[in-house]
Amino acid sequence: MGIAVIYGSSRKDGNSEQLANVLVEGFEVDQIHLADYNIEPHQDYRHSEKQPYPEDDYHHVIERVLAQDVIVFTTPIYWYGASGLTKTFIDRWSQSLRENKTDFLAKLATKSAWVIGVGDDKPHLKGIPLIQQFQYIFEYTGTTFEGYILGKGNKPGDILQDAVTLATVSEIRKLWRQQL
Amino acid sequence: MGIAVIYGSSRKDGNSEQLANVLVEGFEVDQIHLADYNIEPHQDYRHSEKQPYPEDDYHHVIERVLAQDVIVFTTPIYWYGASGLTKTFIDRWSQSLRENKTDFLAKLATKSAWVIGVGDDKPHLKGIPLIQQFQYIFEYTGTTFEGYILGKGNKPGDILQDAVTLATVSEIRKLWRQQL
Amino acid sequence: MGIAVIYGSSRKDGNSEQLANVLVEGFEVDQIHLADYNIEPHQDYRHSEKQPYPEDDYHHVIERVLAQDVIVFTTPIYWYGASGLTKTFIDRWSQSLRENKTDFLAKLATKSAWVIGVGDDKPHLKGIPLIQQFQYIFEYTGTTFEGYILGKGNKPGDILQDAVTLATVSEIRKLWRQQL
Amino acid sequence: MGIAVIYGSSRKDGNSEQLANVLVEGFEVDQIHLADYNIEPHQDYRHSEKQPYPEDDYHHVIERVLAQDVIVFTTPIYWYGASGLTKTFIDRWSQSLRENKTDFLAKLATKSAWVIGVGDDKPHLKGIPLIQQFQYIFEYTGTTFEGYILGKGNKPGDILQDAVTLATVSEIRKLWRQQL
Repeated sequence: MGIAVIYGSSRKDGNSEQLANVLVEGFEVDQIHLADYNIEPHQDYRHSEKQPYPEDDYHHVIERVLAQDVIVFTTPIYWYGASGLTKTFIDRWSQSLRENKTDFLAKLATKSAWVIGVGDDKPHLKGIPLIQQFQYIFEYTGTTFEGYILGKGNKPGDILQDAVTLATVSEIRKLWRQQL
Repeated sequence: MGIAVIYGSSRKDGNSEQLANVLVEGFEVDQIHLADYNIEPHQDYRHSEKQPYPEDDYHHVIERVLAQDVIVFTTPIYWYGASGLTKTFIDRWSQSLRENKTDFLAKLATKSAWVIGVGDDKPHLKGIPLIQQFQYIFEYTGTTFEGYILGKGNKPGDILQDAVTLATVSEIRKLWRQQL
Repeated sequence: MGIAVIYGSSRKDGNSEQLANVLVEGFEVDQIHLADYNIEPHQDYRHSEKQPYPEDDYHHVIERVLAQDVIVFTTPIYWYGASGLTKTFIDRWSQSLRENKTDFLAKLATKSAWVIGVGDDKPHLKGIPLIQQFQYIFEYTGTTFEGYILGKGNKPGDILQDAVTLATVSEIRKLWRQQL
Repeated sequence: MGIAVIYGSSRKDGNSEQLANVLVEGFEVDQIHLADYNIEPHQDYRHSEKQPYPEDDYHHVIERVLAQDVIVFTTPIYWYGASGLTKTFIDRWSQSLRENKTDFLAKLATKSAWVIGVGDDKPHLKGIPLIQQFQYIFEYTGTTFEGYILGKGNKPGDILQDAVTLATVSEIRKLWRQQL
């Protein structure tokens, strides 16, 4: 079982990253920091002559994601949603749909997904729209949405004090070890 | 009463733009297409020494938005959320909070806002998380969230066939004319 | 095309009822006021020896609903959800599932449904969980969820002043006339 | 610290009850099974001459709830919402608002609340509207909404096999012990 962790923060070592690292420690994992790559906003060519898509790092990143069995989206909750980096990456999936819809969806349909969102302002409640958005995304792609963690943190390190969240992480790790 | 329309599509003349244009026609309006500007992803410097923020078009755009009385966010529904362009622009509001929180929030608190989202896959239902996200955003900034339109469209022009949506637009225009 | 309107208010002539009446006027309609019937809370016998279900008006009401093509749930928004009368009636659908699941779901799968919720405290935003609940209900039963109206009203008659809502109602009526 | 547990199931010893019992074991607790009481649907007298409210067990139950510091709503997820018993009980809070609004809200504002919902059909996702409904309820009453558990279970006893949920329960118990 290989895990792709997609970090959506622009900040290194923030709470969402720290939590994801506890989650995947010791597993076979490909850690992808979106901030390290150049991924341009999606060009919507659905109803125009196809023009060239941006020549940037999108294909490199999506290939690495598709090579794993489990996808973990890890994002700080910015303005009650996934970070712009995360959203812009997902928007580009529309490009993959145009390039090879059948293949892209077939691959995503074999995967399972988790979402980690960490925020400061009542994340258990105000992070819910973010989770529902991913719910619809994974329904569309046929990906199994295994679960999510909405954790509370502001200053780096906060999240490692959140006992309920850490207990959840620990149980997910047990689950994964049984699946190996 | 001046209106700032913030277009979040990368595509010109798409459904969300067409609908917004019907809404604001004849009013005093500043039309801002985010795709025409360079707005980098937010750098999260909350817990580090302040480094320079990107020198891009963010300040130009946000100043134009703050100069009007009404804000209309107009976005295609991409992957069940606001477009990456829209989300990246909003993420940068965190920069304004760092630069001058009191002034920024004081200005936003005097404004009223509308959200237009147009999508193809049951937007009345699957566009709801997008609306709830804006609900929390405007709660935080103290902006009056007047209302929203979730319209259905795929091919450009579809939205202009949606009688329920057009009837709603017509009533909002009447409302605005009374406020002039 | 026959319409079953299910009124969930305990109050006669309230806003949700008034709005529904404008919607269905002139159509073939069966108007069912839940407050006129005795429908006991659901008894959950899934994991026990089947005991008798309450001998009350549930069967009478559900048969009338199933005899029509379109279902319109009309409820005041009490405490950010459907009224207890409405929810208790829906809970009893579990009894129909036990009594004849195949037949019950087959019938509901042929119907289309609308939901009207009227409340006083930002119904366009705070009525959303009510709509999402019905979204899942109709997904489960295979019923086509055509749309919903979240209207604002407190004192009886308020709703008839809400131009946006009335415009929506008018468009739905046009749609229905085309389907006759 | 005294805890009022409000059981909304019609079934004794179901999953939601079992989970709540693990949560509160050893604490000072008043266990209230709504199914043991007669609580009639709410009569909406806001805009009519005040008529007598039902003479049933509502006052007895609400007084016991208000006598404690912590409220735990425990409900099976029926049709993607709280049970009819639970909803009907909450609807009656409108009666308390009419009888003595200031006093009723002042008391609720001092309390903290938890919600437990147990269901079979993807409760972590499809139980979300139930949580958002309680979010608005507690915002209105000024009650501190401490958190919630959405657990999975169908047959009685299922919930006690859910390690993530039990880990969460265990951490909440630790938290409570620190507050004693």
